[in-house]
Amino acid sequence: MRDVAVIGIGIQKWGELWERSLRDLWVEAALNAINDAGVDHIDSIYVGAMSPGLFVGQEHIGSLCADYLGVTPVPATRTESACCSGGMAMRSGFIEVASGLSDIVLVSGVEKMTDVDGGGATYALATAADGDYEVYNGITFPGLYAMMARDYMHRFGLTREELAAVPVKSHANGFHNPHAQYRSKLTIDGVIKSVMVADPLTIMDCSPITDGAAAAILCPLDLAKDFAKGKPVVKVAGMGAATDSIALHDRADFSALNAVAVSAQRAYEMAGVKPTDINFAEVHDCFSIAEIIVSEDIGFFEKGKGGQAAAAGETAIGGKIPINTSGGLKSKGHPVGATGIGQIHELVTQLRGDAAERQVAGARRGMAQNMGGSGGSSVVHILEVV
Amino acid sequence: MRDVAVIGIGIQKWGELWERSLRDLWVEAALNAINDAGVDHIDSIYVGAMSPGLFVGQEHIGSLCADYLGVTPVPATRTESACCSGGMAMRSGFIEVASGLSDIVLVSGVEKMTDVDGGGATYALATAADGDYEVYNGITFPGLYAMMARDYMHRFGLTREELAAVPVKSHANGFHNPHAQYRSKLTIDGVIKSVMVADPLTIMDCSPITDGAAAAILCPLDLAKDFAKGKPVVKVAGMGAATDSIALHDRADFSALNAVAVSAQRAYEMAGVKPTDINFAEVHDCFSIAEIIVSEDIGFFEKGKGGQAAAAGETAIGGKIPINTSGGLKSKGHPVGATGIGQIHELVTQLRGDAAERQVAGARRGMAQNMGGSGGSSVVHILEVV
Repeated sequence: MRDVAVIGIGIQKWGELWERSLRDLWVEAALNAINDAGVDHIDSIYVGAMSPGLFVGQEHIGSLCADYLGVTPVPATRTESACCSGGMAMRSGFIEVASGLSDIVLVSGVEKMTDVDGGGATYALATAADGDYEVYNGITFPGLYAMMARDYMHRFGLTREELAAVPVKSHANGFHNPHAQYRSKLTIDGVIKSVMVADPLTIMDCSPITDGAAAAILCPLDLAKDFAKGKPVVKVAGMGAATDSIALHDRADFSALNAVAVSAQRAYEMAGVKPTDINFAEVHDCFSIAEIIVSEDIGFFEKGKGGQAAAAGETAIGGKIPINTSGGLKSKGHPVGATGIGQIHELVTQLRGDAAERQVAGARRGMAQNMGGSGGSSVVHILEVV
Repeated sequence: MRDVAVIGIGIQKWGELWERSLRDLWVEAALNAINDAGVDHIDSIYVGAMSPGLFVGQEHIGSLCADYLGVTPVPATRTESACCSGGMAMRSGFIEVASGLSDIVLVSGVEKMTDVDGGGATYALATAADGDYEVYNGITFPGLYAMMARDYMHRFGLTREELAAVPVKSHANGFHNPHAQYRSKLTIDGVIKSVMVADPLTIMDCSPITDGAAAAILCPLDLAKDFAKGKPVVKVAGMGAATDSIALHDRADFSALNAVAVSAQRAYEMAGVKPTDINFAEVHDCFSIAEIIVSEDIGFFEKGKGGQAAAAGETAIGGKIPINTSGGLKSKGHPVGATGIGQIHELVTQLRGDAAERQVAGARRGMAQNMGGSGGSSVVHILEVV
C-alpha cells in the first residue's frame, strides 16, 4: 500500500441554508478543496451522504456531483454508513490512492437536511437505527442516547453538570470557527435549563439539523510535496473501521461503544502510535453523552472518567487533550454525510497551524472519529505532519 | 496493485417476496457466497443498495448486514450509484483487495422493492434521475428511455420488431435460470401487444420491480487456488467506471451512453483485451432499448446495428456474442442494488461451466456492465478463467 497525504481541504459555512441546494453546497466545498490543493484534474470522487433520498428526493449522488462539478466522466461513488458516511468516503478514497489505482481522489460529504420531504428530518435520521425493531416501536435517536446517558450516569456517577460541560466547551471552540452553524457561547446552567428533548438530554445536549458539505483532496505521499507550496505535508498515518449491532438493545453494555474502540485500535496499530501520542481530536458528539463515551473508548480517559475530565477542562483547547476544537457536531453543525469530512477539514487546518483563535499549540498529530447511528459503525483516521 | 479473484458466489430466488425482509434476503445470499468460497472469516463488506431509505425506511445498511450475518465488528460500507450500486460494491471490494488492506472481502447488493413506503417504487427509482430538473417536471424512467428509443428509431431505422427481439431473447435465457423472477417465454407479437408504458416501450420492454440479493467473495489471486477445490480460478481482469450528466437533456446524443463507452474502454485497457476477446456479457437491460445501445457502446456492434444483431440471433446463446444469458434484468429481475452483483454471479457461473441449459460453450472471459439512471454512471468488470 502506498502512503497517502491530504493536500487540499474545502468547506463552506454550515447552517440552515434555505436558499442553497445540495448540489450547490457540494460544489462550493469541492471547488474550495481543489483550489486549496492546486490540482488540475481528479481521478475519482467519493461522496458521503446518509439519506439524500429521504431528505431531498435525490439518490445517484455521485453522478450528480461529478456532473455539477463539470468533471464527467470521472468515476464517482457515494458511500453510506449513516452519520459516518463522510468518514467512509475518506476511508474509500484512502484505499483507492493506497492501491495505486488513482493518484488524485476527491473525498467529500454532503447533506441537505432542512428542506425535508416526507416524515421530516427526525424520521430520516431514525433510518440509521434498526427499522424493524427500534424505529417501528417509536424510538428515535435522542431517546437512544438518553438511555445510554441514564445507564452511564447510574453506573459511573456522572452528574448533570459534568454532562453539560461538553457542549459548553464545544461552543467555546465553535465561537471561533467561521464555518460553524452556532457561534454562541453556552453556560452549564443554560444547557441544563434548555428545552427537554429526552430525559436527561436537553436540546443543548443535541447536535442540530444542518445543511453543509466538506471536501478534501488525497494523493500519494510522494506526490504531496509538489502541491505543498510551503504548507506542512499531512499524511494519513492510520485508519480503522468497525461495526457493532445496529440496534442498541442487542449490546451487552449501553455505556461503551465497541465499534469505536475497535476502529480506534486499528487506526493506532496502522499508525504505530498510542492515545497519548495524539495531540487533539475531533470526535462524534451527536449528543453530549456520546463525546464522553467516545473519549474513553478511543483511549483518552479511563471508563467512567470522561465526564469529570470534560468538566475539569482537560478536553478544552490548552487542556490535556483538546476535543472538538472546531466546535464539534454540536456547535459547528451536523450535516450528517458531511460531518466526517468536516472533521478531516479541522484536523488539516490545525496541523497546518491555520486555526487562528482555536489553534492547538504544537499540533502535530490529530484523530478524527466519526460514528453511525447509536454506534453501529465507526471510522477513525489519524493524520500527522510529516 | 495485487491481482484479485472471485472465489465464491451466492444468490437466492429473486421475485416478489412479500414474506421476506431486506436483511433476510441479504443474509441468504451472503451465506451462500461464504459457503461456496469456503472461507472461515471476512475482512470487510460492501453492500450495494440504491434507496433502502425510500423503499423500506432503512439506511445504515452496512452495519445492518454485518450485524445480521453475525460478523461485527467487521467493517461494512454501503455503496450507491443508483442501479449500479452493486457494480460499485464490486469495484470497491476489488480496490480494497488490490490495495493489500484486506484479503477476504464480501461484495454484495440488495434491494427490497415491493413493500414500499411513501411515493411508491416509481418515485423511489426516479430519484436516480435529476430531481430538480427531471423528476420535478414529471418524468420517470420509462419516459426517459422511451425518448432514447424514439430518437434511436428515428436516426437508425430500428423497427419495433427488432426492439422486441431483446426481451424475447432474454426470457428464452431466463427460462433456464432457477433464480430468475420471470421464467416465461415471450413472443415478438406478445411484447409489442403488451400494455403500453411509455411509447414505444410496452411493459415487456421494461425490467420489473424485484426483491433480491446477491453476493460474491473476493481474495488475492495468489490465495485463490487454495479455495478453488477443483473449480476454475476466476480472475478480475479488468475494471472501469465512469459518469455522465445525471440528466438526459444535458447530453449531446440521446442514442449513445458515454459513461458506458468510457467504463468499457477502461476495463478493456486494464485487461489488455478488445471486444472480440469477450465470450459473453451481462449488460444493463433496464429497458430493451438500453441493451441495444449498450451492446454498441461496449464495442460489440457498430452504432445503429445492435437491434438488427439482436433480431438476427447474434446475442442469443450460440450466437456471435451471447448477452444476458441469465435472463438479464428483464427476466431475471432487477432488485436495483443487487443487479450488478447478480451479473457477477452469472459470469462466474458461466466461467465455471455451471450454467447447465444456458451454458455458453467455451466461456473463458465474460463482461458485466452495470448502469445507473439513464446512463449517469456505469461500471464494467471483465472476469476470466486463469
